[in-house]
Amino acid sequence: VQTVAIVGVGLIGGSFALALREAGFTGAVLGVSSPGAIRDALEMGVIDRAVSLDEAAQQADLLYLTKPILGILDTLEQLRGKLSPGALVTDGGSTKLAIVEKAMTCITPGQFIGGHPVAGKEISGVGAAEAGLFRGKPYVLTPTDTSQLDSPPVRELMHWIERIGAKLMTLPPAEHDRILASTSHLPQLISTVLAAMLHPEDRPVAGTGLAGMLRLAHSPYSVWGDIFATNRVEVDRALAAYVAALENARYQLAAANLEPLFDRANEAAKTLGPRNGA
Amino acid sequence: VQTVAIVGVGLIGGSFALALREAGFTGAVLGVSSPGAIRDALEMGVIDRAVSLDEAAQQADLLYLTKPILGILDTLEQLRGKLSPGALVTDGGSTKLAIVEKAMTCITPGQFIGGHPVAGKEISGVGAAEAGLFRGKPYVLTPTDTSQLDSPPVRELMHWIERIGAKLMTLPPAEHDRILASTSHLPQLISTVLAAMLHPEDRPVAGTGLAGMLRLAHSPYSVWGDIFATNRVEVDRALAAYVAALENARYQLAAANLEPLFDRANEAAKTLGPRNGA
Repeated sequence: VQTVAIVGVGLIGGSFALALREAGFTGAVLGVSSPGAIRDALEMGVIDRAVSLDEAAQQADLLYLTKPILGILDTLEQLRGKLSPGALVTDGGSTKLAIVEKAMTCITPGQFIGGHPVAGKEISGVGAAEAGLFRGKPYVLTPTDTSQLDSPPVRELMHWIERIGAKLMTLPPAEHDRILASTSHLPQLISTVLAAMLHPEDRPVAGTGLAGMLRLAHSPYSVWGDIFATNRVEVDRALAAYVAALENARYQLAAANLEPLFDRANEAAKTLGPRNGA
Repeated sequence: VQTVAIVGVGLIGGSFALALREAGFTGAVLGVSSPGAIRDALEMGVIDRAVSLDEAAQQADLLYLTKPILGILDTLEQLRGKLSPGALVTDGGSTKLAIVEKAMTCITPGQFIGGHPVAGKEISGVGAAEAGLFRGKPYVLTPTDTSQLDSPPVRELMHWIERIGAKLMTLPPAEHDRILASTSHLPQLISTVLAAMLHPEDRPVAGTGLAGMLRLAHSPYSVWGDIFATNRVEVDRALAAYVAALENARYQLAAANLEPLFDRANEAAKTLGPRNGA
């Protein structure tokens, strides 16, 4: 990779650029973004120069798309027919099937591989970008065919993902969306629904446990709307499974037999690392 | 209060003793507990001396019961007819109706007022006790009749609860149990059920959001069994309401109309304090 173009220079795109630099990338880093983001990114040294999407398509051999999902779909449409044959396009969207399917029709010439760095933080925007954001975090690539992993540009991308300290995984796009529905989209809705349900006058009589369960409820719809729009079926499936599990818990509560459920949960919680904080 | 007896010298009972001392209590602190807890409590200076429950009943003018709920019920039974007329008994149990009803038949002579310090931490046992445990946390007293709050021993207890920095509230016992079903017992089950449901092979593909939602899932049944046993109806009611709210979210997901739910949740989450950590 000689030239990388970050399309959407926010928290993820900016952090990827910084992480590449820290990991020894010496090529050029171009940025396609809104004027405010470009100004901040140039000031922070996140990108070397600002370009239009068309210029990025002509000049970059790696395009990294990190807008909200619908924005990524739109960018893919705009890239149709504009890339050089050797270019690789990847993205950082939180759902993969819609993006990968769109890319199959748009990214020719050029190659596409979907990606999802499972990392983030409270604050969005390039101002919050940091080189260490991906360290120790899962980074999923979603080839539609594993032979895609053998192409030199993809191998080089995989090399950089490992160099920036992420835990590289590969999953088929549909499988990615199915798993994330349970491990990310469902937990978000669980917290959001709980927060919306609690009576305001009851909330003061609560300990630290509740506050922890409502932390995700701070996440705004602007982040989640696109995710639900592009993973509706799997999210509903996860919700239905969770409702069934809660109904079973009601049954076990009535039967004074919740101990096996707690034992399974204790065991599962352990595999996600030691408890930290109340 | 001249003499306090802590019956069950663990995290809560031990912390209450330490908090009293720090707040200026100069009377005697007796402890009724298992040999191991007594040894630790004496070593840490949490109690002045160990006594039997009968001795505590004879000597203390404030008895503070902080065992698991069924242990508190058992202790109330053992105290039947043994207290001096001016003695006050209170407790730290997480559900109140069963305890208050039991106390009405057992604590005569003497007076009882139910209590629930909504505080805790990861580690249990007197070794984890600290004077600051209740600071800034809700501390609910549950009189069956507000006139109980006017008796001199209860007024003195309320004084000490404020002196140790807790946020004193009063609620009828049934109201306490109804509210805590939503703000504490439901969140616990939400986390436990989620942890038990996740497929082990899916868990690695998860961010920090999931880990936060599974923190409560580390809590063991030994802590929760008594709570569910004594608040079954309200916990089931809270679970049923939550299931209905999730079913509504499924409906709004299908209708691409989750934004109002997110807005309500954002608003509610704010009233529980600023977000801290991902």
